[in-house]
Amino acid sequence: MMLPDTPENENVFTWAAPPLKFGAGAIDEIGAEVAARGSSSCLVITDTGVLATGFPSRIAENLRNAGITTEIFDGVGVEPTDLSIEEAVTFARQREWDCFVAVGGGSALDTAKAVNLLTTHPGELLDFVAPPIGAGKAPWLPLKPLIAVPTTAGTGSESTTICVVDLLGLHLKAGVSHPRLRPSLAVIDPRTTLSLPSQVTAASGMDVLSHALESYTSVPYDAKPAPDDPMRRPAFCGSNPISDVWCETALSLVGKNLRRAVHNGRDMHARTQMALASTYAGTGFGNAGTHLPHANAYPVAGAVKSYRAEGYPEMPMVPHGQAVSATAAAVFRWTYPADPARHLRAAELLTGRTFTATDGKEALPHVLSELMADIDMPSGLRSFGYDESDVDTLVDGTLKQTRQLAVVPRSLDRAAAEEIFRQSL
Amino acid sequence: MMLPDTPENENVFTWAAPPLKFGAGAIDEIGAEVAARGSSSCLVITDTGVLATGFPSRIAENLRNAGITTEIFDGVGVEPTDLSIEEAVTFARQREWDCFVAVGGGSALDTAKAVNLLTTHPGELLDFVAPPIGAGKAPWLPLKPLIAVPTTAGTGSESTTICVVDLLGLHLKAGVSHPRLRPSLAVIDPRTTLSLPSQVTAASGMDVLSHALESYTSVPYDAKPAPDDPMRRPAFCGSNPISDVWCETALSLVGKNLRRAVHNGRDMHARTQMALASTYAGTGFGNAGTHLPHANAYPVAGAVKSYRAEGYPEMPMVPHGQAVSATAAAVFRWTYPADPARHLRAAELLTGRTFTATDGKEALPHVLSELMADIDMPSGLRSFGYDESDVDTLVDGTLKQTRQLAVVPRSLDRAAAEEIFRQSL
Repeated sequence: MMLPDTPENENVFTWAAPPLKFGAGAIDEIGAEVAARGSSSCLVITDTGVLATGFPSRIAENLRNAGITTEIFDGVGVEPTDLSIEEAVTFARQREWDCFVAVGGGSALDTAKAVNLLTTHPGELLDFVAPPIGAGKAPWLPLKPLIAVPTTAGTGSESTTICVVDLLGLHLKAGVSHPRLRPSLAVIDPRTTLSLPSQVTAASGMDVLSHALESYTSVPYDAKPAPDDPMRRPAFCGSNPISDVWCETALSLVGKNLRRAVHNGRDMHARTQMALASTYAGTGFGNAGTHLPHANAYPVAGAVKSYRAEGYPEMPMVPHGQAVSATAAAVFRWTYPADPARHLRAAELLTGRTFTATDGKEALPHVLSELMADIDMPSGLRSFGYDESDVDTLVDGTLKQTRQLAVVPRSLDRAAAEEIFRQSL
Repeated sequence: MMLPDTPENENVFTWAAPPLKFGAGAIDEIGAEVAARGSSSCLVITDTGVLATGFPSRIAENLRNAGITTEIFDGVGVEPTDLSIEEAVTFARQREWDCFVAVGGGSALDTAKAVNLLTTHPGELLDFVAPPIGAGKAPWLPLKPLIAVPTTAGTGSESTTICVVDLLGLHLKAGVSHPRLRPSLAVIDPRTTLSLPSQVTAASGMDVLSHALESYTSVPYDAKPAPDDPMRRPAFCGSNPISDVWCETALSLVGKNLRRAVHNGRDMHARTQMALASTYAGTGFGNAGTHLPHANAYPVAGAVKSYRAEGYPEMPMVPHGQAVSATAAAVFRWTYPADPARHLRAAELLTGRTFTATDGKEALPHVLSELMADIDMPSGLRSFGYDESDVDTLVDGTLKQTRQLAVVPRSLDRAAAEEIFRQSL
């Protein structure tokens, strides 16, 4: 039959998510999962903070009980760098591993993706980083099974194809992205989040919220021109009917449960709902994409002076969830005209209240500020030690985040970026 | 840290879905997809009815333009049998294929799953059928990439691990199920549904509705005892927080778009929304499971006498969507007490109207009957030529469907099954 011509705008979206195993008790099935993949050895990748919770050792024991040769590497950096990844790769290369299990937040999961890539392929990380920074190679060999065990109800890295790394020598944050980097299984056990300090719960929860809200308000997939080569679609395709469903559901769960999880960490129901929200949001943003709050978070975290965050390692750092939410109110005030209905709907999902056009562009920023105050999140960039004199540096950093900027729903110029940072001081 | 004991009830659910490519134009990217997998040859598997639409040839041409050696096998049976599958396998074995593309409804997709299994493994279909009928082997070798192109907005087979086959010699319908049978990619192009006759659109749409409604009302995953071996969970795990989201969204889309798609087949918006609904429902039921309407559909289709359906091949057959919906009203009247709130919520999602407990168990059956009347679906088993004297045979057939019966939300005895068939005459 004759078909109507394909329109010039993008008309196709793609979606993918790793298989999931979810529930209290799920981590005690990892040995059986690894054995079922025919693996006889498995490296557990984590950091010292997570190791102290006992979960990585519990998983290693479960693996050994299933007859799997196992070691734990606990040297993951707080934020993975080319150096910390090289250290992990050097450790992993001491023997041939059939399988990897990553236990922790985004740092552990991203490090494991890089270890999997660099122990199955010759070359170094920069070979796989997108040009102009790196050589932009795509993995051409099969990777090993990678089981992701997120323990912060925040990262979303278990769902994505992306590994983000600080390139220390180049003073740049860069991402490696390829479908083969997506974990082969995500194991989400809400019990692993019970011992998270309240300020880590708050920041991780705001990261979940931001994944969902940014994907939901990102540029619609069919508002962009069709790609010349369909196999070279960007990693982030913009909002689409599937990501919308997951983002809406995640926003509603965050609205109902984040305060409870922050104020009573042993509230198993709230912890379970937040773990679900994180999974849903990961499933949404992993394909649609995050935009300006995440783009802004890179320089906000990267230019840190002496700020130290409660509940985090004793070193100068702005936790990712704090960095992301610091500019969120200002961003969503600015993006409102791109799709007022979605901004109002998001405010409704987060509160259960009704909002109309007369509530306007302040509705969503107000809801975000209210929530952040309730869970004791830092309320502005000055909390991290930034002032007017830092705006130029921060804007410079944002304007380099091309992957995120591609799905910002309005055209962003330097003046707009400056204004957003100023409003966020 | 010490963890609370894992409860004795099941506390873990699993979920998986194939990567998706969705949109008008998606089928014209299949050549690029196959090439990107490093394949140099690809067998297109379809039936003569679908071949006549021109889509399989269009896909084959697209494959050849991408440098892929391609042939079309168009001998898929209307309902796959052990014989029709043997024929397809014999054809496929004439050379080594790197990849398979299945184009059509559930029959083409299920046949391709069997061809993939039996051309990569020694042995015959019965070796892989669950005991006591077959030897219950699990695939132990890698399968080839299988790209599923559903053209009916109904099957859901693109999302599942299951291949259903009529075993002619044994007069039995049996399923082979394993995660490796799940397609590696589902390509959904709503344009392929534009030429479906209205009665095929109606029946396929009712199948979508039934996937969503059955999964949504199936036994909750955590109402069952935990399995002794976590790797031997059943293919269907019962309703869970992830399948619920997919099913609710699918029900709402079917309620808004099925009538439009049936009454005006060229309504591209309604066709697109129904294709999405089918995808959502497939992703939901592929893990939660279908229950009694699908269990009943096997004997209803299997015992057919002389019924012929408009829009379908000229042979005695009850199309799957008609068979599934024939007992739906009576089933959901009977399952109502298992979870009244979900039954009322489903009625709301299908209509946009509000229902309360005072509407009771008749609300959902009434909504289903209303919809079926509006789209000219056969309204009872008598339409297919059945009467009181067939009830025993039909019940016998239902009680053999152990995979479906495992997730029925109430305990089903012979008397209840008889009453459901009698109400459905």
